[in-house]
Parts: sequence; structure tokens; C-alpha cells
Amino acid sequence: MILIKVGGGPALNWDGIARDVAELQRTVPIVLVHGANALRNDLAARLGIPVRTVVSPSGITSVYTDQEALDVFLMAYAGLANKRLVACLQRHGVNAVGLSGVDGRLWEAKAKKDLLVRDNGKTKLLRDNLTGRVRKANAGLIRLLLDHGYTPVMSAPAISDENEIVNTDNDGAAAVMAAALGVKTMIFLFEAAGLLRDPEQPESLISRLPRAEIEAAMIYAKGRMQKKILAVKQAFESGVSEIRLGDGRGEHPVRDALAGRGTLIQ
Amino acid sequence: MILIKVGGGPALNWDGIARDVAELQRTVPIVLVHGANALRNDLAARLGIPVRTVVSPSGITSVYTDQEALDVFLMAYAGLANKRLVACLQRHGVNAVGLSGVDGRLWEAKAKKDLLVRDNGKTKLLRDNLTGRVRKANAGLIRLLLDHGYTPVMSAPAISDENEIVNTDNDGAAAVMAAALGVKTMIFLFEAAGLLRDPEQPESLISRLPRAEIEAAMIYAKGRMQKKILAVKQAFESGVSEIRLGDGRGEHPVRDALAGRGTLIQ
Repeated sequence: MILIKVGGGPALNWDGIARDVAELQRTVPIVLVHGANALRNDLAARLGIPVRTVVSPSGITSVYTDQEALDVFLMAYAGLANKRLVACLQRHGVNAVGLSGVDGRLWEAKAKKDLLVRDNGKTKLLRDNLTGRVRKANAGLIRLLLDHGYTPVMSAPAISDENEIVNTDNDGAAAVMAAALGVKTMIFLFEAAGLLRDPEQPESLISRLPRAEIEAAMIYAKGRMQKKILAVKQAFESGVSEIRLGDGRGEHPVRDALAGRGTLIQ
Repeated sequence: MILIKVGGGPALNWDGIARDVAELQRTVPIVLVHGANALRNDLAARLGIPVRTVVSPSGITSVYTDQEALDVFLMAYAGLANKRLVACLQRHGVNAVGLSGVDGRLWEAKAKKDLLVRDNGKTKLLRDNLTGRVRKANAGLIRLLLDHGYTPVMSAPAISDENEIVNTDNDGAAAVMAAALGVKTMIFLFEAAGLLRDPEQPESLISRLPRAEIEAAMIYAKGRMQKKILAVKQAFESGVSEIRLGDGRGEHPVRDALAGRGTLIQ
């Protein structure tokens, strides 16, 4: 089984990804996790709701989620992006079923209502944050769908232990899902050639990275890439044996990643 | 099996409905179809996108759906309403799974791109309407979920034969789904006591209506109620034997409808 996590940038080639999935799933079961970052930011701007990005004391960037931000999140991720991707896969002959982490308790998260953030050099406490960290994934529901010819397409939000809808990091949730499914190969597709030493220089691609050097590679990860590398680390710790970071913008994003373009971490 | 169709008005008691479903599903399998009319109208207004209501030459009201309107529809129905209802059911111990008609080709529709409308006494043709009429429902996916302890929660949009996402009438789709599942009892919950002779007079409730008199009862149906009565007719034609129209605003909307409050059509 291969788990493909596709980012949420505007330049991703969804048709190319769907075409590759259609071809690949003839020989290996595929599950997909997707983002919707660009759609969310666009919708938030149109509604006049600013996306509030915060930085943790350890320097990791995330989004503060109040009720209004969570509604925007639901609309962009579970509404627009998920159903558009499902329809795109259907056009390519893949019988996709879209699910959020709320459906069938697919992704159960521990809510993290209080958030420590760094603000102007000071550490501050933000309350009522509707975010959580996924700790448990419902692999049974995914296997049920796969066994009957459906291709699951998943995305945040998750559901908390108290049955609230909570925003969650898709990369981290994908790692938990991969572990629950016993997935050995994960592919992360985004808007870059792979992990780059210098984000401005495509030729600075790190094409092979031994698993032992992931921690050290964190110095190359900027912005959203930080969470991906953290998720990579988490995925290896829970049994994944091979992770490929690839360019989601090309003609054949999945095929290329499997052919060894991008960054291969083993 | 009972199919419950809940409208999309702002005054519906979702918690009450979820509580009743939790109790009822111990003895009979339940599937849900829901609307999100109020959320859609609210979102469209906030985004400055008018909801364009049109009237067919035969006097039936519907919404003209261009790409922008379809995006709003996806966000409100598949995003906000569906996931909120799933989380609400989860809070009441129902392991709900939310699906749109696009997922697993749940609702396949014939696209109806050209729309005849009555405008100032004249009949006009509107093109590029992203709407369709559901003709086929994937009962297998719903049975698969039910057989494994999940409660399906469905809503428009649907998927067209050409794999486009299309807006569709939830009441009509619910009737097709009921037929595909061999459902005998359907319950429609909305913001009225049932079918009223006069919408302004709750005491004008028609509490029993023989099936043969549905056609005649169309004179009492105003606005959105028209499509419900058409769906009722369609459902009977495809094998449903009992339809209950009930008040979705009460403490126990489902229990009350089954106890014979509201309108019973047999």
C-alpha cells in the first residue's frame, strides 16, 4: 500500500496526480491525503477573516484556529478541495470516496486548547484554540473501502476525544494513518523539486537522505516544510520504511517520485 | 431501514434529531440525507454572490447554478453542514460517515445544462447550468457502511455522467436512494408541523393523506415544499410505502414523526 500526501498549493497538477493514481492502483492499493492551503487562504481573505499564523517557542509555524477559522477550514478542505479532488479522480476512472477526519472517527485527536506562542520575543498563551494532534486513525474504515474498490481521499479536520471538530496538521495525521495501515511507502508531493538545501535553488535538491540524517536536515526546512520533515520523522518511528518527497507540479508527479526524482529518504 | 431527510433551515433541532437517531438505530438501520439551505444563503451573501432563484414554466422554484454558485454550494453542504452534522451525531454516540453524491458515485445525475425559466411572463433559456437530476444511487456503498456499524449522512451535490460536480435536488435524490435501498419508510423533517393547508396556520395541518391524493395536495405546497411533495410522489412510485412529514424543530423530531404527529402519507 502507498500513501500519497498532496499539499495544498495552487500550482499542483491534480490531473497529473489523478492519472498516475489511476495507473498505479492497478498494481498497488493507494490512499490519498490532501491539503487545501491556497483555497483556505483565498476564502479567508474573501470573507475578511485573517489567517492567524503563530510560531511555537521551538520555532514551528502553525495556524491559530477559532470557531470562525474552523468554519473556513471546513469549507475549503472538506467542502471545495476534497470534492473537487474526488471528482477529478472519478474523471480518471478512480472510484474515489472523500472523507474528513471527523467521518467514522477517521482521525481522533487530542485537543490542544492552550497554545504557547512566541510573539515579539515573548512567550504568550493563546486559549480556545480548536486544534488537536491526531493520535489514533481508523484503519478499519480505510481497509473496508479499499477492499471494495474505493480509493479513500482524506483530509483534516479531525475529531477530538470530546467529539469536537478540530483543525489538525495533515502531514502528522498522514503519518499516523500510514502507521495504522502498515504502509511502507509514503510520498509527499508539493510545490518544490524535493527537499532543497536552498529553497531558492532547485539544483540544491537533496536526492538521497539516510533516515539517520533527518534531524540534521531540519536546518534546510523552512515554513510549511518543517511540519513535513517532522511528519517524516514520525512516520519512520511508526514503521514506514521509505519516504519520497516529490514535485507535485510535473506531468507525472507520482510516477516521477517513484522513479527516484525528488528526495528519497530510507 | 428508515431514510430521514432533514431540511436546511436555521431552526432545526439537530441535537434532538441526533438523539432520536441514536435511540432508533438500536432497532432499525438509519440513513440520513440533509440540506443546508440557510448556511448556503448566508455564505453566498457574505461572499457577495447572489443566490439566483428561477421558476420553471410549470411553476417549480429552483436555483440556477454557475461555477461560483456551485463552489458556495460545496462549501456549505459538503463542508460546513455535513461535517457539523457528522460531529453532532458522533457526540450522541452515532458513528456517522458523511458523504456527498460525488463520493463513490453515490448519486449519479443526468446534467441539465439548459434550463427553461419563466421571467416576467416570458419563457427564457438559461445555459451552462451546473445542475442535474439523480437517476442512479450507489446502494452498495451505503449497505457496506451500514453493515459495518457506520451511519451514512448524505447530501448534494451529485456527479454527472460526464464526471462533473452538479447541484441537485436533495429531496429527489433521497427518493432515488430510498428506492435503491428498498426503504419502506421515509421521514421528511423541516420547519413546519407537516403539510399545512395554509402555511400561516399550524392548525391547518393535514395529518393523514392517502397516497392517491398527493397530486391534489400540490395546491397546498408553496416554495420549497413543492419539491418535497414531488419527491414524495417519486418515492411512492419507486416502492416506498409510507412517508411521514414532520417538524424538525421539536424536542424529539424523529420520534414524534414516527408517533404520528405531522403528516402521514400512505
